[in-house]
Amino acid sequence: MARSGRRPGNQDTREAILVAAREAFADRGFDGSSIRSIATAARVDPALVHHYFGTKDQLFLDAMQAPFDPAVMLTSVLNKGADGVGERLVRTALTVWDGPAGGAAAAIVRSAVSNEMFARMMREFVMRRVMRKIAHDLDLDPAEAITRAGLVASQMAGLILMRYVVRIEPMASMPAETVVALIGPTVQRYLTEPLPPS
Amino acid sequence: MARSGRRPGNQDTREAILVAAREAFADRGFDGSSIRSIATAARVDPALVHHYFGTKDQLFLDAMQAPFDPAVMLTSVLNKGADGVGERLVRTALTVWDGPAGGAAAAIVRSAVSNEMFARMMREFVMRRVMRKIAHDLDLDPAEAITRAGLVASQMAGLILMRYVVRIEPMASMPAETVVALIGPTVQRYLTEPLPPS
Repeated sequence: MARSGRRPGNQDTREAILVAAREAFADRGFDGSSIRSIATAARVDPALVHHYFGTKDQLFLDAMQAPFDPAVMLTSVLNKGADGVGERLVRTALTVWDGPAGGAAAAIVRSAVSNEMFARMMREFVMRRVMRKIAHDLDLDPAEAITRAGLVASQMAGLILMRYVVRIEPMASMPAETVVALIGPTVQRYLTEPLPPS
Repeated sequence: MARSGRRPGNQDTREAILVAAREAFADRGFDGSSIRSIATAARVDPALVHHYFGTKDQLFLDAMQAPFDPAVMLTSVLNKGADGVGERLVRTALTVWDGPAGGAAAAIVRSAVSNEMFARMMREFVMRRVMRKIAHDLDLDPAEAITRAGLVASQMAGLILMRYVVRIEPMASMPAETVVALIGPTVQRYLTEPLPPS
């Protein structure tokens, strides 16, 4: 496989690609960044980027240091259809955040909120991997999908902020199933009930 | 008025009180911090703290560098009763955040999310000045009030995060009245509709 000779160690090469990827995604967004341009910035062959990271999606997740892939997590929520999807989505999110990856995820949220570069990457992340997948898999009316996804994101982001990041009671210590019962119906309404005329 | 001679300038004295107040509120919370103990830490007479800041509430808001007092803002939302309170609450929040104080408020949210000391102060702030006031003014069942307030806070925090801090579309650019129509009913349900059995 062709590669530049600049960085001999694999770990250094991998890190150089990640640094270039973060800069590219922050500057030009996910859609505006190509594997080729990231490879050029890292002074490596594009084939090496594919070798280390597979797809641009995976490179993005690694550049974000994402502890899990929300798109994979969402698949099990969405492939059971629209009935009860609100409660499933809340339950799955709580399972991930209450689990071992939760601490790393909270750190990402803190970075996204306090740092403009991370905020931009987070926008891409949420828009592309979460919102679009929900809209597509539930077969939402395309004219309404983005609004519904934004509503769900606003409720889920606030729940995660209250429960895991700022940790305000009673949300912080409430049993997961209580949270599911309280907030699941809101997410369900945002996804599947008629929207008010705008 | 008695005062220590340590800091001759008024501005220095005021700043010393604010520094001591931030430390006290972060260490011991709002309820655990007295004007007297803050004055002692700042090496000033308690009367001087009252002179500069009036009440402990106002000292807290100044220590947080809060650009407005959410309790004052909430009064006009709550004193019209339970009907339509959800939409009024969302509308008032957007009016404040869309106004000149919005930028400073966003900075406070960033600090609260990224910094543990600010997070603790924010918990106090939200719990004491916002949640308790809502529960009291709407005469909510005391056994449910804290849950309802937490639900409202989770939706409002997520909305503010999406619209003003991380700025994810479509929430970021949506007309305020569209947001009110979409999210007001959720806040209304959280405040006044029956909660699921827990």
